[in-house]
Amino acid sequence: MYPFKPGHVFVRDTWYVAALSAEIDAGMIERRILDEPVLLYRTEAGDPVAMAGLCPHRRLPLAMGRRVGDAVQCAYHGITFGPDGSCLRVPSQASPGSRMRVRTYPVVERWNWVWIWTGDPAAADPALIPDHGEMGLRDGWEATPAEHYAVPARYQLLIENLQDLSHISYLHGAYVEDAAWTETPVQTMFEGGGMRSARISHDTPLSGFNAWCFPDAAPRVDQELRSVFKSPGVTYSGPIVGETPGEACNGRYLGTMFAVHAITPETPRSTHYFSTTTRDFRTGDTAFSEELHRMDIEVRMQDVVALGAIERHLSDESRLAPEISVAADTPALHVRRLVEKMIAAEQAA
Amino acid sequence: MYPFKPGHVFVRDTWYVAALSAEIDAGMIERRILDEPVLLYRTEAGDPVAMAGLCPHRRLPLAMGRRVGDAVQCAYHGITFGPDGSCLRVPSQASPGSRMRVRTYPVVERWNWVWIWTGDPAAADPALIPDHGEMGLRDGWEATPAEHYAVPARYQLLIENLQDLSHISYLHGAYVEDAAWTETPVQTMFEGGGMRSARISHDTPLSGFNAWCFPDAAPRVDQELRSVFKSPGVTYSGPIVGETPGEACNGRYLGTMFAVHAITPETPRSTHYFSTTTRDFRTGDTAFSEELHRMDIEVRMQDVVALGAIERHLSDESRLAPEISVAADTPALHVRRLVEKMIAAEQAA
Amino acid sequence: MYPFKPGHVFVRDTWYVAALSAEIDAGMIERRILDEPVLLYRTEAGDPVAMAGLCPHRRLPLAMGRRVGDAVQCAYHGITFGPDGSCLRVPSQASPGSRMRVRTYPVVERWNWVWIWTGDPAAADPALIPDHGEMGLRDGWEATPAEHYAVPARYQLLIENLQDLSHISYLHGAYVEDAAWTETPVQTMFEGGGMRSARISHDTPLSGFNAWCFPDAAPRVDQELRSVFKSPGVTYSGPIVGETPGEACNGRYLGTMFAVHAITPETPRSTHYFSTTTRDFRTGDTAFSEELHRMDIEVRMQDVVALGAIERHLSDESRLAPEISVAADTPALHVRRLVEKMIAAEQAA
Repeated sequence: MYPFKPGHVFVRDTWYVAALSAEIDAGMIERRILDEPVLLYRTEAGDPVAMAGLCPHRRLPLAMGRRVGDAVQCAYHGITFGPDGSCLRVPSQASPGSRMRVRTYPVVERWNWVWIWTGDPAAADPALIPDHGEMGLRDGWEATPAEHYAVPARYQLLIENLQDLSHISYLHGAYVEDAAWTETPVQTMFEGGGMRSARISHDTPLSGFNAWCFPDAAPRVDQELRSVFKSPGVTYSGPIVGETPGEACNGRYLGTMFAVHAITPETPRSTHYFSTTTRDFRTGDTAFSEELHRMDIEVRMQDVVALGAIERHLSDESRLAPEISVAADTPALHVRRLVEKMIAAEQAA
Repeated sequence: MYPFKPGHVFVRDTWYVAALSAEIDAGMIERRILDEPVLLYRTEAGDPVAMAGLCPHRRLPLAMGRRVGDAVQCAYHGITFGPDGSCLRVPSQASPGSRMRVRTYPVVERWNWVWIWTGDPAAADPALIPDHGEMGLRDGWEATPAEHYAVPARYQLLIENLQDLSHISYLHGAYVEDAAWTETPVQTMFEGGGMRSARISHDTPLSGFNAWCFPDAAPRVDQELRSVFKSPGVTYSGPIVGETPGEACNGRYLGTMFAVHAITPETPRSTHYFSTTTRDFRTGDTAFSEELHRMDIEVRMQDVVALGAIERHLSDESRLAPEISVAADTPALHVRRLVEKMIAAEQAA
Repeated sequence: MYPFKPGHVFVRDTWYVAALSAEIDAGMIERRILDEPVLLYRTEAGDPVAMAGLCPHRRLPLAMGRRVGDAVQCAYHGITFGPDGSCLRVPSQASPGSRMRVRTYPVVERWNWVWIWTGDPAAADPALIPDHGEMGLRDGWEATPAEHYAVPARYQLLIENLQDLSHISYLHGAYVEDAAWTETPVQTMFEGGGMRSARISHDTPLSGFNAWCFPDAAPRVDQELRSVFKSPGVTYSGPIVGETPGEACNGRYLGTMFAVHAITPETPRSTHYFSTTTRDFRTGDTAFSEELHRMDIEVRMQDVVALGAIERHLSDESRLAPEISVAADTPALHVRRLVEKMIAAEQAA
């Protein structure tokens, strides 16, 4: 499936964000993840639970049932499952039997989101969840509220969108007008199973967006625009800015802002997109935070709309002319190959 | 097609309800039956007619045309067909020719519904229509008004729903709370090409539902909950209740109530569901009838909603985990095999 | 694909109307033509441009972008194309490179519509556009305003509809009640790669429609009802009427009215339908023109509704009974073979 080989669709052995923490409460929700229905709820102790969304008996969605303590009772015939997936009761027989159980998924709650491991549970090592501190979810930094977008497009379009940041000046030009980013060459470096791409510019004029972020900055800055693909489920990206050293300036560090992108395939052609922005400057500046949050929502909705428009034309791949790539696509094509290799490795296993 | 072998979809050589009598009048309606468009109307004498829904010339739906006496004139080029399917007139030529005709279906009107035979017309014996008296459509019994539901699910889900009445206490628990039914073992008996399943309990407490039906009953009753699969098109089900014989009670018979279920495949994934309830007690009690009718509609809508929720997840069978059955599924699995044998026999013929 | 052999869908090497002239202005529209997205706009000089609708880089619809003079800048990464399809700029690199370009389509504006050639551009001879004078788009005749209908049906249904005008008396009987047309034999003649069919009647009563057109005519007329298939993209049809010569009448010519039908496949199952009516009588009679225009819209909407109703039942051809043709279908079947031969010839080339 574009942009991969036919039959290559999802990476399973990885952590994805299943939901914002605030989306899961005492009730139950059903959410499609990697094209499977998943039931999400919390135990009375507050621990998140993820299990296959259909009763294995006659496949009624379990989310239509009701909670019985920490267990879930199917609305159809009353068959009841504990949070570990074991069957506690089949009302029409004395014992539930050994075959009746529902698959559960390893889940870990970290920061404001609930992570799910969609592959072999035996391999679900929480240490594989991308480091939250690295992306700015750490003490001393400030994060805007987490959001959840429904993207009507395959996940890889979003992953690659984030590796060709030359689009910022166009698709998001009304909000982030730093045209210099587009023209700055991009460098890539593979690290830790992922990839970092960077546009580094020296002694460039303070752009409108930077002037808004750093109103007392010197007029010329050094800047890195970084985009880090950590896993199929997580990319983060954003600028690191400092004043350009010179006669009247010692090269003062100004700050870093990351947009965090948690990307979870919903179906082969749609994606859950969870997000926040983090920064280490003007923390505690509520008005700035709110304006940044509002702007970030508008920028991401531009991506949602554009990717959806692309997806609508991908349904019959055989009739599409081959795409033509440019130099700025190098990081995206690197990541495309990384993800395709992950899928191929899982299919070979 | 689940729950049958691939390619097994419909039983054709059987009687189905095509419509409520009240749905067909001097006008014409088109209804999809066994995934074919069928035109339904009445002659001026009031006899129901069923014919293929498309003009055999250029396939405009005949229901868009107009009635000319007992005949149907296509809206496109005016080609006209009599109620026997013969072509009476092709306006652009002197004679209609011998090939131009439209398929008709044998129809029989009985009680408040119109039955259609979808298989070989030569085999359309009205004696094969399930006995109406047996299901309570007879003198001395009372029936609530017939209803017609659109079920967004394959017909077999509904047939099997009616053979595992352990669901009553859960899906319909707000209306019919007799939990004992779920826990009573079920017995099955093949008879007349169909199957009867029964849950028989002795000396059980009068439930809330029974107390409402029989307000002057003794506190303990004997009860049979019966479900009879007569044909792919008809199942009826319901309780037969009497007081438990004892010191102060001679085992007085209280009454029988049947829900009649006429099940007609619309498409491979949707079903027409025609219904009524019949009973031999409190006949003439209008307030009771109205409340029973209202409750019956709510109960059946619970089935419609549940079966639709299951159907939505059945579209890609290859990705579904195998279903796990329990002891209470025995009657449903028997009926599944019965229906599958009928389909296989027709395909072999 | 019905009514052609499997795999036979569109004729490509022909001129189609892409849009009404008034539909294209300084902005950009995307329109699906032969199941491909096409971008339509005008240069600053007013010349129409048609190019493939998706950016060849990452396939965002170009219509979401913006105009930069006569060029189109993609909204995603700012890649810019001139009206000849050449790439003028890839913002992230010094030169656009030689591979980056977008396909353009030959276009010609004639009368009030913009014609597009969907086949090999080398063969796009404007002389192949059907002669506008022949269909009444000429000096001395009057045309009603051009309209654009969305037909939810495959184009061939519309082409054949126009070759069996026996439908006029039925489908359009409320507006055009000339029943005699249906019963008049039809003659066909192949000419210029197309086909003309004609119903010629002599000494027939003036019908209600003709009486409305020619209020001072003698009571009996000679009439030809002509339908001319010029190409897959153009058919025109209509009556040529004169008084029947006799004792008190010298056979005065009354007039000709053509409905012009420009038929452009949108998808395999939907069609753009552009239309006007032309006439050589009562020109300058505004009230008559307006009433004719209004009636023409209603008549064509009857075709749109009927063809859509037929199309809905064509989705699974394997289950449809074979269609049965009548004598009046001869012209339509001739044209069907003509179009099928064109498709086959292109596929063989």
